[in-house]
Amino acid sequence: MEKEKVHGFVKESMPDAIEKLKEYLRFPTVSAQHKAIPETVDYVVKMIEDIGGETKVLGDLGGNPVVYGFFSAGSKGDASKTLLFYNHYDVQPPEPFDEWHTEPFEPTIVDGKLFARGVADNKGDLVARLTAIQILQQAEGGLPCNIKFMIEGEEEIGSPNLEPYLREYKDLFAADACIWEFGSKDEAERISMVAGIKGMAYMELTCVGAEIDMHSSVGAYVDNAAWRLVQALATMKNEQNEILVAGFFDGIEEPTDGEKEVVSQLPFDEGAIEELYGLKRPLITKAKGIDPRDAMVFHPTMTICGLVSGYIGEGAKTVLPKNAKAKMDCRLVPGQDPHHILACIQKHLNDHGFTDIQATMINGQRAYRSDYHHPFVAHVLDTARLVYDKEPVLAPNSAGTGPMFAFGEALQLPIVSTGVGWIGSKVHAPNESIRLDDFEQGVAHMVLMLSGFAAALSTEKEGAQA
Amino acid sequence: MEKEKVHGFVKESMPDAIEKLKEYLRFPTVSAQHKAIPETVDYVVKMIEDIGGETKVLGDLGGNPVVYGFFSAGSKGDASKTLLFYNHYDVQPPEPFDEWHTEPFEPTIVDGKLFARGVADNKGDLVARLTAIQILQQAEGGLPCNIKFMIEGEEEIGSPNLEPYLREYKDLFAADACIWEFGSKDEAERISMVAGIKGMAYMELTCVGAEIDMHSSVGAYVDNAAWRLVQALATMKNEQNEILVAGFFDGIEEPTDGEKEVVSQLPFDEGAIEELYGLKRPLITKAKGIDPRDAMVFHPTMTICGLVSGYIGEGAKTVLPKNAKAKMDCRLVPGQDPHHILACIQKHLNDHGFTDIQATMINGQRAYRSDYHHPFVAHVLDTARLVYDKEPVLAPNSAGTGPMFAFGEALQLPIVSTGVGWIGSKVHAPNESIRLDDFEQGVAHMVLMLSGFAAALSTEKEGAQA
Repeated sequence: MEKEKVHGFVKESMPDAIEKLKEYLRFPTVSAQHKAIPETVDYVVKMIEDIGGETKVLGDLGGNPVVYGFFSAGSKGDASKTLLFYNHYDVQPPEPFDEWHTEPFEPTIVDGKLFARGVADNKGDLVARLTAIQILQQAEGGLPCNIKFMIEGEEEIGSPNLEPYLREYKDLFAADACIWEFGSKDEAERISMVAGIKGMAYMELTCVGAEIDMHSSVGAYVDNAAWRLVQALATMKNEQNEILVAGFFDGIEEPTDGEKEVVSQLPFDEGAIEELYGLKRPLITKAKGIDPRDAMVFHPTMTICGLVSGYIGEGAKTVLPKNAKAKMDCRLVPGQDPHHILACIQKHLNDHGFTDIQATMINGQRAYRSDYHHPFVAHVLDTARLVYDKEPVLAPNSAGTGPMFAFGEALQLPIVSTGVGWIGSKVHAPNESIRLDDFEQGVAHMVLMLSGFAAALSTEKEGAQA
Repeated sequence: MEKEKVHGFVKESMPDAIEKLKEYLRFPTVSAQHKAIPETVDYVVKMIEDIGGETKVLGDLGGNPVVYGFFSAGSKGDASKTLLFYNHYDVQPPEPFDEWHTEPFEPTIVDGKLFARGVADNKGDLVARLTAIQILQQAEGGLPCNIKFMIEGEEEIGSPNLEPYLREYKDLFAADACIWEFGSKDEAERISMVAGIKGMAYMELTCVGAEIDMHSSVGAYVDNAAWRLVQALATMKNEQNEILVAGFFDGIEEPTDGEKEVVSQLPFDEGAIEELYGLKRPLITKAKGIDPRDAMVFHPTMTICGLVSGYIGEGAKTVLPKNAKAKMDCRLVPGQDPHHILACIQKHLNDHGFTDIQATMINGQRAYRSDYHHPFVAHVLDTARLVYDKEPVLAPNSAGTGPMFAFGEALQLPIVSTGVGWIGSKVHAPNESIRLDDFEQGVAHMVLMLSGFAAALSTEKEGAQA
């Protein structure tokens, strides 16, 4: 389809697409809190079937159901090629509620932005993809290739049950390439895509000092779980933000020169980032003399995501807390094993005398990088250039995480992630949003990408045979 | 009054006293949360007036009202002597609710124990004192001396407005001696009293890293308020529980040899304390080779009472928190100045590069010790011996805190604290309770103490004149 025709079709489809998205966003599908799962699954199935897709709801291997969707190529299409979309229907918890300017589960449009929990991560992307399919059906009388969906419901809690489904249903989900769930424009309005993903070891560190909270006057002789946890954490990362846990860096695969070159060319606007988040301190890469692009793509992290102990309400409560807890997220790079990370951290705690602190894994995932030189990667980039005003950006892997390793391993296919977010989307934070103009462009990109998909992959195979 | 007669009167008074106390406990008077203040004040006034006392509600100097109560000596009593009771009508927050086995504000008797927030600290003590007065009125036809009450409503938030009332109404509250609000039996069932109190510097340490919570993937280059706070706290107290803040120990008045001797004789049952709280680690005094009695009475503390940052709910939320907060309680000994402590801590933070962490005072109070050899002290001890089966214990000061310094300074009088708690009272924690037998003994002790009060003080004065 021509670029101009696509533009017209997309414009026309917007009112219905936005209504569909709003309805989807009203489900408070917080997987961490086990909320609204069955009704969201029903709605996802309905969205696919309403536009002629087949579905299967897979629940036999545990966890929240995985929705499989299938659309076959039209008579003019190439049924020998299949594109797989990976999405998730679950969202992050909306807390803290009092920082939202609109209701998190009552989607609200303000100044061309649609606000709701999950709109950028990742309900908006699913609706954009379904809308692209609908446009192709209407404009071309059928689809240019087979299209599959895998839509899971536990991404925000680390996809703990996804791997068995990928292994068991490997033929069902078989495809030639995969568009991953998310993406957004960066601070310079460039669409930012990735061909890989960081891994994760998300854990809880818990120190139990007593069976009950005590009056704080006993602090003269009773040990304090909060002090223990603070002292233990301080041995794991120093004031210069250097990770001090022995074995943490084991097995890391050095990036190739090609990957390093790509990363060195990635855009990164320090000032824009500082302003966006309202940062009070300089980037930590500055003091360490590191290129933040390298840190973003190639360096693992160790982040305290949460701390809680004792009294956290208003004013003073003079309590000596019975326990203290930290939630910690280590983002991993290819070669690191989350279970080895957990073991290293527990060993570090024990070796430093903190045998009273237990590290438990909440979510472990390995990192993944696609072959950066696959023609699918080039096709996604090329079609993005037709839609977006600025040169797109495609990094070897994201700074964020998802269950991409399991996909790559089970399905053996190239993966590129792109989506409808923007730099201010506030994914995982209050006031999450997408801009409707970005949503429109995201639909247009998927229309063009699907249109030329089969041809782009066939060219490659022929080239390879020649 | 004779011991046996007292016993009979007290027994008889119990049903009414317990009903009165239950009604008092139903007010959720949480000063930190500004709850139920006016209705509790009305009820306190009613309790005093119902048994013939005069009252004044003082509110002209700010804060929650201070209730003044007055009962004059009967015709057979000595109107030249006045005993002052200090109590407070406010209570600690009940949180965490889910750890209570009964409703915190629905007083419930189980196995001879009365459970409710504030029953031990300190609503039970006020009702015990009023019951003793009622018994003396009924049994003797009048009171043996003048009795005053000062009942404030901000003790649990550090009595921030009490000092002006004491200064302004110094004549109204003038007395010869004071019984302080609280006390309890220790692990060996000895009534445990104090003639002084530790001070307090309760503060909040706040680190703000950004204006919004961020996706934790940015941890590769964005600094983290939670890590900053952890690193800063770890510089303030080491793993051996030694306080490292320069100036913290400035001005401490060395205890006298007499005080040291008394403290070395205090009971302290380590095993019982470990069992009571379900401690997972040995007492910190053990590793430091310190007598826990000394630590309890003579050593200042630095206790983390609360930690909060980022996501503290169930499961994983991959957030890089915008801020982090610690609540910290330093218990002070005579000579330490809470404002100097605050200044030392802020200077320590700044000197260690943590200028992004702000320390703010929530509650500052100096420590106080009465003259341990005053005849009032001896009289309280002697009358306790008549009531309690085991030898009473009276320490130079408590490990806990209250606004005693302001009393001692404004009113110049000896102060002894005693009350109706037990070792398992769980003051400031869920499932606070008193035992009804202790309550009964507490009433009996106050009857006997008031009976002989004027004579005990007169003897002293005559002796002094001789």
